[in-house]
Amino acid sequence: MTTASPRPAQATSTQANDPQPPLPHHDGSTLYVSNPCPNLGDTIRVRVRIPRTAPYTAVVLHSLADDELHLENARPILSTDTETWYEAPLPIHNPDTRYRFALLRDGGFDWLNALGVFDREVSDVFDFRITTFSPSPAWNREGATYQIFPDRFARSEQSATRQAPDWAHPTAWSTKPLAYGVETGRQWYGGDLKGIEEHLDYIQDLGFTTVYLTPCFPARSVHRYDASTFDHIDPLLGGDEALRSLARACHARGMRIMGDLTLNHTGSSHEWFQRALHDPNSEERDYYLWDRYPDDYVAWMGIKSLPKLNWTSHKLVDRMIRGASSSAGQWLGGEDGLDGWRIDVANQTGRWAAMDENHTVAMTIRATIDELTGGNGTLIAEYMPDATRDLTGDGWQGVMNYAAFAHPLWMWVADPNSHVKRFGFDETFPRRSGIAMADTMRELLAQIPWKVAESQWNLIDSHDSARILTLTQSPQVAHAALGIMMTYPGVPMVFAGDERDSTGITGEESRTPMDWDAPESAHSATINRYRELLKLRKTSSALTHGGLRWVSVQADAVAYLREDATDRLLVVAARQGGQQVHVTRELLGNADPQLVAGEGSVAAADHGARFALPDAGYGVWRLGGLEVPRW
Amino acid sequence: MTTASPRPAQATSTQANDPQPPLPHHDGSTLYVSNPCPNLGDTIRVRVRIPRTAPYTAVVLHSLADDELHLENARPILSTDTETWYEAPLPIHNPDTRYRFALLRDGGFDWLNALGVFDREVSDVFDFRITTFSPSPAWNREGATYQIFPDRFARSEQSATRQAPDWAHPTAWSTKPLAYGVETGRQWYGGDLKGIEEHLDYIQDLGFTTVYLTPCFPARSVHRYDASTFDHIDPLLGGDEALRSLARACHARGMRIMGDLTLNHTGSSHEWFQRALHDPNSEERDYYLWDRYPDDYVAWMGIKSLPKLNWTSHKLVDRMIRGASSSAGQWLGGEDGLDGWRIDVANQTGRWAAMDENHTVAMTIRATIDELTGGNGTLIAEYMPDATRDLTGDGWQGVMNYAAFAHPLWMWVADPNSHVKRFGFDETFPRRSGIAMADTMRELLAQIPWKVAESQWNLIDSHDSARILTLTQSPQVAHAALGIMMTYPGVPMVFAGDERDSTGITGEESRTPMDWDAPESAHSATINRYRELLKLRKTSSALTHGGLRWVSVQADAVAYLREDATDRLLVVAARQGGQQVHVTRELLGNADPQLVAGEGSVAAADHGARFALPDAGYGVWRLGGLEVPRW
Repeated sequence: MTTASPRPAQATSTQANDPQPPLPHHDGSTLYVSNPCPNLGDTIRVRVRIPRTAPYTAVVLHSLADDELHLENARPILSTDTETWYEAPLPIHNPDTRYRFALLRDGGFDWLNALGVFDREVSDVFDFRITTFSPSPAWNREGATYQIFPDRFARSEQSATRQAPDWAHPTAWSTKPLAYGVETGRQWYGGDLKGIEEHLDYIQDLGFTTVYLTPCFPARSVHRYDASTFDHIDPLLGGDEALRSLARACHARGMRIMGDLTLNHTGSSHEWFQRALHDPNSEERDYYLWDRYPDDYVAWMGIKSLPKLNWTSHKLVDRMIRGASSSAGQWLGGEDGLDGWRIDVANQTGRWAAMDENHTVAMTIRATIDELTGGNGTLIAEYMPDATRDLTGDGWQGVMNYAAFAHPLWMWVADPNSHVKRFGFDETFPRRSGIAMADTMRELLAQIPWKVAESQWNLIDSHDSARILTLTQSPQVAHAALGIMMTYPGVPMVFAGDERDSTGITGEESRTPMDWDAPESAHSATINRYRELLKLRKTSSALTHGGLRWVSVQADAVAYLREDATDRLLVVAARQGGQQVHVTRELLGNADPQLVAGEGSVAAADHGARFALPDAGYGVWRLGGLEVPRW
Repeated sequence: MTTASPRPAQATSTQANDPQPPLPHHDGSTLYVSNPCPNLGDTIRVRVRIPRTAPYTAVVLHSLADDELHLENARPILSTDTETWYEAPLPIHNPDTRYRFALLRDGGFDWLNALGVFDREVSDVFDFRITTFSPSPAWNREGATYQIFPDRFARSEQSATRQAPDWAHPTAWSTKPLAYGVETGRQWYGGDLKGIEEHLDYIQDLGFTTVYLTPCFPARSVHRYDASTFDHIDPLLGGDEALRSLARACHARGMRIMGDLTLNHTGSSHEWFQRALHDPNSEERDYYLWDRYPDDYVAWMGIKSLPKLNWTSHKLVDRMIRGASSSAGQWLGGEDGLDGWRIDVANQTGRWAAMDENHTVAMTIRATIDELTGGNGTLIAEYMPDATRDLTGDGWQGVMNYAAFAHPLWMWVADPNSHVKRFGFDETFPRRSGIAMADTMRELLAQIPWKVAESQWNLIDSHDSARILTLTQSPQVAHAALGIMMTYPGVPMVFAGDERDSTGITGEESRTPMDWDAPESAHSATINRYRELLKLRKTSSALTHGGLRWVSVQADAVAYLREDATDRLLVVAARQGGQQVHVTRELLGNADPQLVAGEGSVAAADHGARFALPDAGYGVWRLGGLEVPRW
């Protein structure tokens, strides 16, 4: 009863070693789009490549302008022995423009959209999309993010001098965190911001360019998602000056730093909520959603310590997210400020019953970030569910990419005996095939503008999930997941400790204190892969700006090309050993593939080459460049 | 290079005579949803049926509340020898609620969404959707619409007394309209509203319940989409009193009448535009979009005789669409008023560059219709492109269903030598398989709330397209298309003349004068099918309120079930003769199928029955009812 899935048949193969013919291709990367950031009224140019083996004789560009059909003939601009490139003008008449290609053949035509080629009419949902909205800055799109849960990363000397507050249970650094229960947020290990600053060498040496800290505001838990104020940094972490100092230190080395802000709710101990509760005439009363004032109010998932914010209150907007003096604004910009915010439970923010202020909230804090960073800040939203509908890119620049990346990947690499459960479900993660993984990734990637895809934070775990090593029960399979994260379109976001083989079956348990006492050699097999892949990412424009073509999808191995005009990489990943991927010469080009990361061998094979991985893991090969006319 | 398409493999068959196993199923019809029109805060119940042959052991309902995951366990409520029905509570926390089912099996789970069953993670785009918005009234959803182009339908005695205006070329009733060119709109045949009133017996006898008139306002063409005022009905058609009289006559027989209003633009001869053009201080100046006043302005598709309206003007909103005295309002409601509006080029309405007032315009005119008809009026939008994104149902209640119905159907029935071109394209319609048709219909139907689907106007041609007989070049194939339109979810909308075998290769040529002089017997083969199918529709709640299950999809034949708790129909349609469809007993039930429309034979076959069509066309069989617990 399990089934094939909504996908164009030619995009993937269920047959190991069955070489796939090249396919017509376009995506939103700079190889195919003359200007990914056009202004309203511009006419840009878009290109599509058609294999010589395909039956198409002409190409027409179909776009929507004011939601009405607009057609442009494409003209051939390059013919090689394997393919023809066509180019067409695309008028940017609206801020969000949808387009696809009609591929004309004898007796009719097929459609090429972001999901593939269809010999039928299609809905607009998988049309390519280009917008006039700026993407996240280059430092995000070209960088790599290191996520730190401050209580568990590192203790400075000052840490030992601090007293535990009433809610906290001092816990020894070597103690494994609890996996479940109310006590988890009270386990106080004493990590602080100075401890992070002292380890910037380590972080930068790994290859990371951005430090992202989970919340640092005072609260009544080490999670700190239950903030009691946004005006100060928790003294337990070192206070305001510790954050300023850490930001200066990051910036001095060319690194960036991002904070974590919850806009959906505050803690019930928050000064606003306390005022709201005790003064019926207070401005703050209107910041929250009261079922029956003051006794009952809307709270996150019904948890009364987390009262939900009311974003129809203009005064809340001004106080919390609009401008330099707002809660969000006061920590942004300058040498000693943050470079952006990650927004907690952004999916629920501003949404309640018939109210939906989500887009307005996103656009407003985006404007504040733009204002205070000179247009050089980043806004990333946490979304566990599919974020597609909110990812046009005029609000959130991207999300922590659970739905379109982590979930399908996890189900490919999950060990059936991991005992790790899917969020919200009682069942262990199902193990699914590489075809399932690729189909899901393609379906979700196909619905958002490419610029947004390049801004997404792709992750293989986080402070809210099982550690990848626990899910996979295998360092090699964890490396396969790592190889994909580091080479897939978007920004890798790594939860500190993964590079040192941390484990944990729930998010709580995964908030493992770093084992600084262990010699690095104890983790060199993993840590060196982080160094290798992050270095490759820094030196390959294909990984940060290139397009994506899947070339083989099998149950246990997948392969794709990342390509721009100057660099081409072939990525092969396998979840078990002994996998082979056969790639045709049309896809490889004529140059000899050079292994640049991971392991694997390549041998000539019928009309192409065969790439073999000895074990689960990944191999990345550099191929010859492309001869495409400059824009 | 042509390809399989995004669809669950088990939903369709490419093998003729290959019986399909029954599939897990849910849709938004009343068989599966306890209350299709819930209020915010209600908890409704939803059901899903799982075949005994499927490996599923439990069902979990997954929905989104404030865009966050919400899970409910389903419980089995009925087990038959072929299937188990599960039921789960669904909280209606937001106006638009998305949901799907996790089907648990050993080692994991599959998802059931509106597209089918997937053994992988899915995006939310094909989730089932239920909203708190009212659908169009029962008279629309349970009715059938007859479209009339007034100049070409019938002339009353008064017609001969009218003088041609300066722009018009009097044309003899027997002259075939021109297919192309600027003269098309000037061919004045002299049909009028009294002529329509005189033929209401004919229309009602066919089985139609709603008359929809293309525009009746004065203009400078017989199209009348270039209105010069909205305050009067064109005297060439009989003037205001002729419309009032026609409305009274419709209502007296229990019929409904709908008008046609263009909100995207007016004619350049419109009194508002003339005032705008000549008085820079006029209120009307702001009704239009000026590139450079008064010399240049935005116009529909650049055609300067059709200046585009500016819906950011609140005064335009008040004057044209808000309330009883507005242009739209003054013709609505009461015994002598219209029962609703069809909105011309609704897709472009209110959209220009960065401006998008479409949703606001739709909601505003919807409120006016509701107000003046006591919540019993209909608002249908013309959309040639995919209308999905605008079909939540709080504005437009439905569309003239080109993208999700007519286009895929046309490509199935098009004769390769029809010379009919797709809108905007130079190429003749490609001929595609039944698989292509069903996949497209499923992909688009899966993205909208079921209530909206029931309100859509499905069509096989219109005043803007080729006639179905010209496209198919075969009365039998045209009947196949007709059979599908009359039995597919939604409201059949027939362009007057189809029942009398009208032809035409373009919309212009299709605006054929009715051949009242020909005896009805000359068209009885076709006309009787309209009578038969419209009568069946009136007597089968399955056709108006039932769910939809595709049971066989082949290149040349398709079959589906329409089912509610009291009635079940099997529809088989074929585009060429000699087709057979094998349906299993699990899908048929135990009763003997009875042919109730069209032609065909049924014979027992291995584990079910084989339905055979002798020629292209359709057959509809009534099956036994369902024993499902009442809500």
